[in-house]
Amino acid sequence: MPARSPVPPIDGDNRDNDPYLVIAADSHAGLPTAQYRQYLETRFHPAFDEFLAERAAVLEAVTKLGVRDSTFAQQWFDEHDEELAGGWDAIRRDQTLDADGVAAEVVYPDADAVESRTCVPFGAGLGLSGDLDPELGLAGAKAHNRWLAELCSTSPERRCGVALVPITGALEDVLAEIDWAKDHGLGAVMIPARWCNQTPYHDVRYDAVWARCEEYAMPVVTHSGSAPRDEYGDNLGIYVTEVTWWPARPMWFLLWSGVFERFPGLRFCTTEGGCWWLPQLLWSWDRLWLGQKGAEKLGKLAFKGKVEMLPSEYVDRNCFTGLANVKRRELGMRYEIGIDNMLWGTDFPHPEGTWPATLAALKATFFDIPVHETRRMLGLSAAEAFGFDLDKLRPIAQKIGPTPSDLGQLSETQTEEELVARWAPVKAVGRHWLTGHDFPLYPM
Amino acid sequence: MPARSPVPPIDGDNRDNDPYLVIAADSHAGLPTAQYRQYLETRFHPAFDEFLAERAAVLEAVTKLGVRDSTFAQQWFDEHDEELAGGWDAIRRDQTLDADGVAAEVVYPDADAVESRTCVPFGAGLGLSGDLDPELGLAGAKAHNRWLAELCSTSPERRCGVALVPITGALEDVLAEIDWAKDHGLGAVMIPARWCNQTPYHDVRYDAVWARCEEYAMPVVTHSGSAPRDEYGDNLGIYVTEVTWWPARPMWFLLWSGVFERFPGLRFCTTEGGCWWLPQLLWSWDRLWLGQKGAEKLGKLAFKGKVEMLPSEYVDRNCFTGLANVKRRELGMRYEIGIDNMLWGTDFPHPEGTWPATLAALKATFFDIPVHETRRMLGLSAAEAFGFDLDKLRPIAQKIGPTPSDLGQLSETQTEEELVARWAPVKAVGRHWLTGHDFPLYPM
Repeated sequence: MPARSPVPPIDGDNRDNDPYLVIAADSHAGLPTAQYRQYLETRFHPAFDEFLAERAAVLEAVTKLGVRDSTFAQQWFDEHDEELAGGWDAIRRDQTLDADGVAAEVVYPDADAVESRTCVPFGAGLGLSGDLDPELGLAGAKAHNRWLAELCSTSPERRCGVALVPITGALEDVLAEIDWAKDHGLGAVMIPARWCNQTPYHDVRYDAVWARCEEYAMPVVTHSGSAPRDEYGDNLGIYVTEVTWWPARPMWFLLWSGVFERFPGLRFCTTEGGCWWLPQLLWSWDRLWLGQKGAEKLGKLAFKGKVEMLPSEYVDRNCFTGLANVKRRELGMRYEIGIDNMLWGTDFPHPEGTWPATLAALKATFFDIPVHETRRMLGLSAAEAFGFDLDKLRPIAQKIGPTPSDLGQLSETQTEEELVARWAPVKAVGRHWLTGHDFPLYPM
Repeated sequence: MPARSPVPPIDGDNRDNDPYLVIAADSHAGLPTAQYRQYLETRFHPAFDEFLAERAAVLEAVTKLGVRDSTFAQQWFDEHDEELAGGWDAIRRDQTLDADGVAAEVVYPDADAVESRTCVPFGAGLGLSGDLDPELGLAGAKAHNRWLAELCSTSPERRCGVALVPITGALEDVLAEIDWAKDHGLGAVMIPARWCNQTPYHDVRYDAVWARCEEYAMPVVTHSGSAPRDEYGDNLGIYVTEVTWWPARPMWFLLWSGVFERFPGLRFCTTEGGCWWLPQLLWSWDRLWLGQKGAEKLGKLAFKGKVEMLPSEYVDRNCFTGLANVKRRELGMRYEIGIDNMLWGTDFPHPEGTWPATLAALKATFFDIPVHETRRMLGLSAAEAFGFDLDKLRPIAQKIGPTPSDLGQLSETQTEEELVARWAPVKAVGRHWLTGHDFPLYPM
């Protein structure tokens, strides 16, 4: 796989005020749970009835943990009843995307993050993990994938559907499901964030999976959600602290075991875990690989054949973070993280995301970021990573996309040159451990 | 427990060039493994013979993982043969501390981090974790504690011995061992970094442990070492990535489950995991607690009675990080982390630490840090946290401690006022999420 090539800006010169081509690298869709029945093989219907019957107890448990607040939930559904149907209705969904300025999206499961009213059968949605019953987990995933393929067949140019694939299960089934997903227009493969008691992802057992995903140009993705909740009691803070760590964990299992060396075209994206943790990992990984102070005692050949480049170079080539509700702190770190590794998202229709006030959120976070960098983070990088057809999206973006002046970036008193100049010293320091600086830099 | 009160500087005015009172909050001591026999109850001798017989296989495994490099190991032992005896010999140890400029130390187990020649019986050393055989684990810990109490009885004013206490075991035994440790002059309680299949640390089961440690003013500590190696295959990078995470994990289990609210005087310190990960945790924790964007949907009463203050306030009151080979990047983050939360260490006699070139390491990292801050990080904060008697240490420090000018901080061309001025803008931004700034700040 060649180094990522810059994509031409949407319309010539980056300094112009053309609308942004916005791709939400994190959004969600799912059927109201009971309706998944029609997509499940008949033999699983009895188990599905049991699953539905247990939903009330699950809701009670998440309320006890504090993940759900009853008052907030009531108000959320009252205020957004109609738009939330965009969680499963393609027409409404396109209308909502249009109103939000979003041309295209990478579609993860579980539209409802307040009361899990649209959850994938048998726990195979965002909580996908290696401890699911293998047969039921696959059945639930298949049901969602089949429905999702239908959803994405409406406005296919605007949607990259994420297939759920419990790769810790029987390899034959796993590969067959990836084949099915590819054949039916889905564009990425979500794997369990945690393998639990199954084989960890460094194992060559999974090489067949990585090979298939590389061949199909389907990014392998994880999403926050799965965590060892049975260890947490009813302590919400522990859950929120760790729920960003577990989905990121496969990244270093793949990197250090040489998966990106063996499959240079494989793309891995971890979503809705933020990206604020990445600078320090790149720093410590590069230091380790370079054998800097503290690493002298380690085996010099430990990385031979597995990790032949700097770890940060693999991340630049193979890894991405899908973002929801990106923070100014994170944008300030973008020269350490790598601009092209940061794929902006709305998290629609989750309340912790930017919808329905996406323009306001963009303005509040991107107002001083150079336009040419914003174009990458808001859409062009995601287009490359997930294979969107820019020619098909440009006309949509021209109609609905926010402009740099909408974001407060360009105005009569502020030019692109000035934005670039503001950040130039920060960019020059970049990954400070590779540019001879002691510290990263942020603007005052 | 009152807020930490500033301790008077070693000799009046911080701007003077008095020697630093240096305390290594991370150092190691241990007997050559076979010699632990005399400290083990006789009934465990047969098991100890088996344990010794398996050491060769363990060494082979860590070499395969890349934790050990044969060439480096050979050279290390050839060059430092005599000084390494300071790992267990008190007289040599004091001589080595003197030569290294270190007045006092917090003493963790496992003197040899190259070939584990001084490991605690039955895996109860730095790898202490909840999956040890309960009976053997406690027996090994007791053997080390009994030997360590002897070691610390030589120059007791210079040593805070860390008792090994596998708190996941029977509560009665655990409390008895803490009592024994207190009675025999040990000053801190190291708990398993990972509880594994035992009860997680948020559980009220452990309240009796926290209460005892609070009563005795013995900090509860973890140290890097334990990690789920069986998940890693022979991939060194995975191990090195995670070995700093697992020992830090108990911090947020205690914090979010209200342990620091119930035991305001309890001190928790996680050692040799660095501190570069702490700013982002404080930032995300405080944001969560404040109910900022992304947290609106969560239960408003989830923290009630458990976490009544800002998480960062608990960290300032109750938590510390023990550092080895501290990096400039970390020192640059000290106003976010909290200066008093950073306890410098040598990691003596581990090769990844600063010994035997501590002065050079101090000079390379602290050369532009204000003297009054350096005094806190190099010793005064550790003295408060671990209860060292400053009156007894001052005479030693006056003889052996490096001076600010030794560290390149004060000179004819550089004053304390200038150092303070250099960092003043960085300090003013501090924890940027609490001071109205979007980003942290580092100097150019």
